[in-house]
Amino acid sequence: MRVLISHGEPTLDERQASAIKAGSRVIEHDGLDTSLVKNIHGEGKLHGILSFQYVLHASLNSCAVMTPRSPLAATAMDFYCHGDYRGCKRWAAVDSVVSIKSTMTDPHPEKNAAQQLADLAYADMRRVDALILERLDSHVELIPELAKYLIEAGGKRVRPMITVAAGNLLGYTEDSVMKLAAAVEFIHTATLLHDDVVDESGMRRGKTAANLIWGNASSVLVGDFLFARSFSLMVEAGSMKALGVLSAAASTIAEGEVRQLSAVKDMSVSVDTYMQIIDAKTAALFAAAAQVSGIVAGRSQEDETALETYGRELGLAFQLVDDALDYGGQASKLGKSVGDDFREGKVTLPVALCLQAATGEEAEFWKRVIADSDQREGDFDKAVSYMQARGAIKATVDAARDHAKSARIALQRFPANEWRAALEDLVDFVVERAY
Amino acid sequence: MRVLISHGEPTLDERQASAIKAGSRVIEHDGLDTSLVKNIHGEGKLHGILSFQYVLHASLNSCAVMTPRSPLAATAMDFYCHGDYRGCKRWAAVDSVVSIKSTMTDPHPEKNAAQQLADLAYADMRRVDALILERLDSHVELIPELAKYLIEAGGKRVRPMITVAAGNLLGYTEDSVMKLAAAVEFIHTATLLHDDVVDESGMRRGKTAANLIWGNASSVLVGDFLFARSFSLMVEAGSMKALGVLSAAASTIAEGEVRQLSAVKDMSVSVDTYMQIIDAKTAALFAAAAQVSGIVAGRSQEDETALETYGRELGLAFQLVDDALDYGGQASKLGKSVGDDFREGKVTLPVALCLQAATGEEAEFWKRVIADSDQREGDFDKAVSYMQARGAIKATVDAARDHAKSARIALQRFPANEWRAALEDLVDFVVERAY
Repeated sequence: MRVLISHGEPTLDERQASAIKAGSRVIEHDGLDTSLVKNIHGEGKLHGILSFQYVLHASLNSCAVMTPRSPLAATAMDFYCHGDYRGCKRWAAVDSVVSIKSTMTDPHPEKNAAQQLADLAYADMRRVDALILERLDSHVELIPELAKYLIEAGGKRVRPMITVAAGNLLGYTEDSVMKLAAAVEFIHTATLLHDDVVDESGMRRGKTAANLIWGNASSVLVGDFLFARSFSLMVEAGSMKALGVLSAAASTIAEGEVRQLSAVKDMSVSVDTYMQIIDAKTAALFAAAAQVSGIVAGRSQEDETALETYGRELGLAFQLVDDALDYGGQASKLGKSVGDDFREGKVTLPVALCLQAATGEEAEFWKRVIADSDQREGDFDKAVSYMQARGAIKATVDAARDHAKSARIALQRFPANEWRAALEDLVDFVVERAY
Repeated sequence: MRVLISHGEPTLDERQASAIKAGSRVIEHDGLDTSLVKNIHGEGKLHGILSFQYVLHASLNSCAVMTPRSPLAATAMDFYCHGDYRGCKRWAAVDSVVSIKSTMTDPHPEKNAAQQLADLAYADMRRVDALILERLDSHVELIPELAKYLIEAGGKRVRPMITVAAGNLLGYTEDSVMKLAAAVEFIHTATLLHDDVVDESGMRRGKTAANLIWGNASSVLVGDFLFARSFSLMVEAGSMKALGVLSAAASTIAEGEVRQLSAVKDMSVSVDTYMQIIDAKTAALFAAAAQVSGIVAGRSQEDETALETYGRELGLAFQLVDDALDYGGQASKLGKSVGDDFREGKVTLPVALCLQAATGEEAEFWKRVIADSDQREGDFDKAVSYMQARGAIKATVDAARDHAKSARIALQRFPANEWRAALEDLVDFVVERAY
């Protein structure tokens, strides 16, 4: 939970108060450094400073000053912060804002694995960012406006960073790698935009979903635009084979999303089915993101396959941890926004593991909250209790750890340089999020 | 208006009765040819016989026997017919079904221009159809089910037929042409699926929109799947240049759709803006559909540009006529389903022409029905009256005729063979629909 507090008039509601008690680091600062404040969307509404690590993952060490993006975003959950870390501009969403009047600087400069990779890839990621901004451009104003909202605000850039890092691992950093990295981010962003329409969730990890601000129609069409532009970038990258891999990944993602749709409220979803779904909806793009660098670098089929395996296993671990975190993670702590999957009736692994073993009262509970969508106060905590009793969250994290191990092993054929180390550390970081 | 009547218990409502009086050909037949009847979706619900020309355009000479697709499709507008014409299976929607118990055969075998092209392209279009069916396949059942509903039911295949005909015009009919033609149809179908979500229209030309049967989520995701598969087909076609042209067209279409969104209920949409919108949302794909054949055939830049011009001008004429037909066309006859654009407040050319000249009572009328979305009974007829008084529908059809002429001129550099003749006739046919 990232909680921001300032010298305004704090009125903590129960959830915010318990989040703070549960261990969120609340940072209270004063002294706005106006030299770092910038406008967004020309409206002068969104300003702030935050640490870079905040952007790359859900860190606790974040701080910002901000005002709502639009009247629609007027709840405490709907604030964004803008940061400047070592000259690198970043945007991120925060989960909760208690009250804001001042700004803060990062009090915890220590680095984690994801941050180390980000530092290493810094120069190349600027090339990717420049491409992204350039290709977002359109004479139809709404398109860059909406796309930037999503790409700048929520963009952790994990997937394109994998493409860039894989290229560097092979000593290949031509423009084609950066173009493919930007294409990967466009596919991911298009998927997010369409997911918001599909989920009708209204919120995307503590942030107002774009469809609530601009409407479903805009989200669908801007997603299509990004998707089309991603293919234009691939054409520029010039590799027909990489194009084939990424277009296949794109249709696999759509298949995975359709299957996930039918897995909602479905008590019969097995562990196998769940794994197939996350392999398609998440791991396929991670796999392609790593593989395409091997392709344009002209490496052997074995190297290509190793990169593809690294990406796929990392993607599986990533999604497993995400699904565990939705129930509070290994320690059932309050991390990021919890309970989204539960409220939507998604049968993720922690639920599937309970479903296959539950009997009696527990079986009735799961049927009521998942199949019948009849959820009452306290049900989420009860679900977490059942999961803890069955070790379902631990089993989910263990499964993530297994896939993380496979991802590390896949890298062993490459020379042990700083890039391989960073890619290995990224694997550990993905799993460590769960603790 | 295509009206089907049978030996059931006809209960004509006022609209149906007036449609029949207005000149629709009502065909009453008996004697079901069971050898031609086939099931659809394994439900045994949709059967029939119809003429081929029925499918390619809104002909009056159609006949079918059918039952509703689903409970959602239980109104008279929601019937589909299945036809067999010279061994070629076809599906199409009909505007009105009075009552159905028997089947009919085509009493009017004469051909029109579109039908002649369809006959000429018959063998190649079978290759395209085979590719389409093959690439629709997915282990996720909903995907082929939904996609086939749209592709088989509503597919006029005009765009891929242009690709095929352009290839034949150049004497080039390799598989790459068929793959690009199938890719063009996939892009078009994905756009239709997403349009249904965007328009929230519920109906697509007399047919229940897919999103009403399967939900918005499925329409978005299956659209994404088709879009991704279209790029896989292009990769197989093997031309990076053709890929670039089609991906650019895809992003242009999305831009056009976004602009059209903002043109809804907007009284300030000018004739120029309207032309830019239809150039992007419709003509870009027609242009690319023709151009890519020139690319894979390895023709000169001049030939390529001529084909691109043919497609663009034909696409503009097509959309202009479509927009005129939404107000009944040149003769304000009842053709296809009228009034959709009016109800949605779309500022198409006939409206834009009235808006720029209207004063007093008329100006107030347009403001009420378009900007304020306050539409009452009789407003559509009143809108048509104003348009007739101002010659706005005639002007729209005249503009279509101008673009049609440019399309014909673009073909003049090619040898005068049967393919060129068929492509020229297609232009005339597109415009003649307005009469």
